[in-house]
Amino acid sequence: MSYIKDLGERAVSAKAKLSAAPASKRDSAILKAAELLVENADNILLENTKDIAAAIQRGIKDAFIERLTLSDSRIAAIADGLRKITALPDPLGEVIGGGNLPNGLSVVKKRVPLGVIGIIFESRPNVAADAAGLCLKSGNTVILRGGSDAIHSNRVITNLFREACIMSGLPADSVILVEDTSRDAATALMRLNGYVDVLIPRGGAGLIKSVVENATVPVIETGAGNCHVYVDEYADIAKAVSITDNAKKQRPSVCNSIESLLVHTNIASTFLPALASVWGDSVEIYGDPETAAIIHTTRPVTDEDYYTEYNENKIAVRIVPDIKTAIAHIEKYGTHHSDAIITENFRNATEFTEQVQSAAVYVNASTRFTDGYEFGLGAEIGISTQKLHARGPMGLKELTTYKYIVTGDGQIRE
Amino acid sequence: MSYIKDLGERAVSAKAKLSAAPASKRDSAILKAAELLVENADNILLENTKDIAAAIQRGIKDAFIERLTLSDSRIAAIADGLRKITALPDPLGEVIGGGNLPNGLSVVKKRVPLGVIGIIFESRPNVAADAAGLCLKSGNTVILRGGSDAIHSNRVITNLFREACIMSGLPADSVILVEDTSRDAATALMRLNGYVDVLIPRGGAGLIKSVVENATVPVIETGAGNCHVYVDEYADIAKAVSITDNAKKQRPSVCNSIESLLVHTNIASTFLPALASVWGDSVEIYGDPETAAIIHTTRPVTDEDYYTEYNENKIAVRIVPDIKTAIAHIEKYGTHHSDAIITENFRNATEFTEQVQSAAVYVNASTRFTDGYEFGLGAEIGISTQKLHARGPMGLKELTTYKYIVTGDGQIRE
Repeated sequence: MSYIKDLGERAVSAKAKLSAAPASKRDSAILKAAELLVENADNILLENTKDIAAAIQRGIKDAFIERLTLSDSRIAAIADGLRKITALPDPLGEVIGGGNLPNGLSVVKKRVPLGVIGIIFESRPNVAADAAGLCLKSGNTVILRGGSDAIHSNRVITNLFREACIMSGLPADSVILVEDTSRDAATALMRLNGYVDVLIPRGGAGLIKSVVENATVPVIETGAGNCHVYVDEYADIAKAVSITDNAKKQRPSVCNSIESLLVHTNIASTFLPALASVWGDSVEIYGDPETAAIIHTTRPVTDEDYYTEYNENKIAVRIVPDIKTAIAHIEKYGTHHSDAIITENFRNATEFTEQVQSAAVYVNASTRFTDGYEFGLGAEIGISTQKLHARGPMGLKELTTYKYIVTGDGQIRE
Repeated sequence: MSYIKDLGERAVSAKAKLSAAPASKRDSAILKAAELLVENADNILLENTKDIAAAIQRGIKDAFIERLTLSDSRIAAIADGLRKITALPDPLGEVIGGGNLPNGLSVVKKRVPLGVIGIIFESRPNVAADAAGLCLKSGNTVILRGGSDAIHSNRVITNLFREACIMSGLPADSVILVEDTSRDAATALMRLNGYVDVLIPRGGAGLIKSVVENATVPVIETGAGNCHVYVDEYADIAKAVSITDNAKKQRPSVCNSIESLLVHTNIASTFLPALASVWGDSVEIYGDPETAAIIHTTRPVTDEDYYTEYNENKIAVRIVPDIKTAIAHIEKYGTHHSDAIITENFRNATEFTEQVQSAAVYVNASTRFTDGYEFGLGAEIGISTQKLHARGPMGLKELTTYKYIVTGDGQIRE
């Protein structure tokens, strides 16, 4: 598709200038964008209203409208987030290895931008601003492709970023929006080899699957979070209840909240009633017959439930005879995002952290901490659930690669 | 395809045991495999003869037969390479980050295996042994898919590795060969999401392209090497001639040899005759009219030539008016593998190393040094030409990922 190839060429041409720009210029563009967003809040809200009106007309459900809707305070929060990004250390130029080779060659391994990053996202217009800020900070040109539902909002936000780039001496094409929101355009972006260095999908399971199926450019999968808490037979009941409650209920819609609860059979009859007394009717429990024998409101669980990311106040419960069964369950049904064991037993804690092959493995803490801010990365562009390149929260460093600079005085290979 | 899915399940089941095995067991399996290869050399050569006979019958060309052919000395070299791998430090378990969070959580970022690595390769049976050794050392289960031309050789080699694994207390399925060499089986392997964590193609441009087009599992692209030497106007002629000669002729079939030569117009009339007097007729020169005016045997160059990896004694030459044109040429036609500038000018050296976005950028040295052994990584599984995960030579560390181990005492998120 020539429109998308054209965008790719513009991105590549901006890349050379952006990647060579000092941190001061990149920070200045981000600060300027934050300023412009606040100054132009009225205009942004006007454009956002068009998207909302169209969504309402199409009879879209409330949760979706809620994600789409901007407000003065949301715009202020976006601008604040951008300012915080500029306060983070520059990820570029860091020397991460090197030394002299026996033949006298000097090798320096240095952090550099990935190049051109494609972001495919759904209805949240704040993603456009967050992603643009993180990509600018890390010296990456970004091609944003949001859903058609948010096209007016995304366009006004992107244009302000482009203006901010120009004002700071950076190419406007450091931030590019795909204005063609057709499926064909998205597919063309996924196959823009030679232009797009990395594609990061941000959204639900359907979006991720479509990108993985169709992309020929390198992809980082993010956000699939079928997380678990395993309450070991040696758990402290109070910690187990508090952590399970937090991991499920504190914010059920996000990827680091749990979907399944595994309970050792020896502790089930004390732990489950304690949990039920805290939860009351607030969480729908799907469980095996042993769970139902303890909590009478339990609905029957299916294999499908164990594979499901509910993203709401539902949980699948299974009573297990031993820690090995718990680990095997997590490996089979989980998405290798974040999983926790609650135990006071050292050996079981160690077995769990060694055997569970997830990006983040917890002992006696809530899975909700898997987050760029919580982990001290300062910001995040998503949470990787693949093993290539980056795992878990991806901050600025995860938006870089490296190159080897080798200097000599005429060395040739024997 | 149920056969491939079956292999995937076997690999995943071996993965849990292999990834938890201490370095001593993994090293022991590799040493044992080296021993078995040498002990069973006669049998390996017998099987290899079947592959060679079949290739000859199909009228396959000599260079191919040469790559396919094993001998006692090649087997000894393979065994020697395996022993050297065991002498390298264990890449697993290394703590590469972490600390305490403000809420008292302890975070440890630890190096772990990628999991299941698929290797798709062509006719060299030594790749089966090298890849199996590197994957075992890094705790990764490997699924090998070689070409049909080498099936007998690959089968006997793989079976010896499986025997070595059993003798060292590791699952035989730590090393798996895809015995179905059909295209369908290869495609099924490329789409084995949930089983294969990373796929590494090793072979020519056609193989790489097919994997990039068809794979839905994460891929590391390797080996596409359209490399350049740029002889700057401030080059030392002797260094320029020696490095260009080495980078082109020392081993033209490999990816880190050069395919194109860019020469500053101010130095062309002294440098090119000096190069031509060293090369004589040994290299076919394709060049622009300015080159032809200096070297009369020059054949006309096409745009296609500048994109071509000759992998033989041919070179495309272009005279450029300035360093910017040289850099733009490399960015346009190159594969971002290894590119060199020959100059005594500091500013030009810096501009080149900063602006050329290749995995390895050289000043006054041959591109032939881009190699795991030369870079001190000890061994390599390939040379990445993508930006995700790893760039340049990939050693044992590049066959790992990391996980976060987070331990607490009941922490929940506010």
